[in-house]
Amino acid sequence: MEINIAFTQTPIDFSPSPLPSHEIGAVVEFQGIVRGTEGPAAITALDYEAYEPMARRRLIEHIRELGLSYHCAAVVFVHRLGRVPVGEASLLVRVFSKHRGTALALCGELIDRMKADVPIWKCNAA
Amino acid sequence: MEINIAFTQTPIDFSPSPLPSHEIGAVVEFQGIVRGTEGPAAITALDYEAYEPMARRRLIEHIRELGLSYHCAAVVFVHRLGRVPVGEASLLVRVFSKHRGTALALCGELIDRMKADVPIWKCNAA
Repeated sequence: MEINIAFTQTPIDFSPSPLPSHEIGAVVEFQGIVRGTEGPAAITALDYEAYEPMARRRLIEHIRELGLSYHCAAVVFVHRLGRVPVGEASLLVRVFSKHRGTALALCGELIDRMKADVPIWKCNAA
Repeated sequence: MEINIAFTQTPIDFSPSPLPSHEIGAVVEFQGIVRGTEGPAAITALDYEAYEPMARRRLIEHIRELGLSYHCAAVVFVHRLGRVPVGEASLLVRVFSKHRGTALALCGELIDRMKADVPIWKCNAA
């Protein structure tokens, strides 16, 4: 499985990723967007931080492990760090697979695992 | 829930849809891509047809019904008709929601229901 992980301080680039092969029948893309409220408070932005070497290592471990259950061809993971304004994306996940079921399952479970077990966090609301 | 359904004879336009509100925390996009094989045969394209008025009506019914279980803000559904070359998208589904769980679930179940119960079909392989 191709795995491509990136962290960026600038807005996430959503230009299409090339298809890894002619065996791809499903591309699932997830965007996590900063909402205008955090708990009860109205906000204008969230600040994100990551411990990048560990985050990258953990993400690769989780993606490889999920790939054993959900065979997929490629995963792209991009997380924005620093200040992210409301309405902009903090996270992009793209999964390429032969079939939609594996792509949707891997995408959802990867985000669950990221929230539970990867050192990327909201450090401040503005 | 905003529902936007379209059929097109030309390549699907993947430019971003505007966010319906600042309450959107998750955007899920699914692309169905024509693969290079159909059963055992290598192909270069698939031809799609639809009975559009019924397809549109059924899709709206299914999306509204799924919205009762998975509260989402908006759904965009675009299906390409006519000849679709290998490696190009025949289907785009975008779901906008406050939370990722509802968006991923609605997206997956909508495609299952489309395959089972909506008059859009592959009529020819080239």
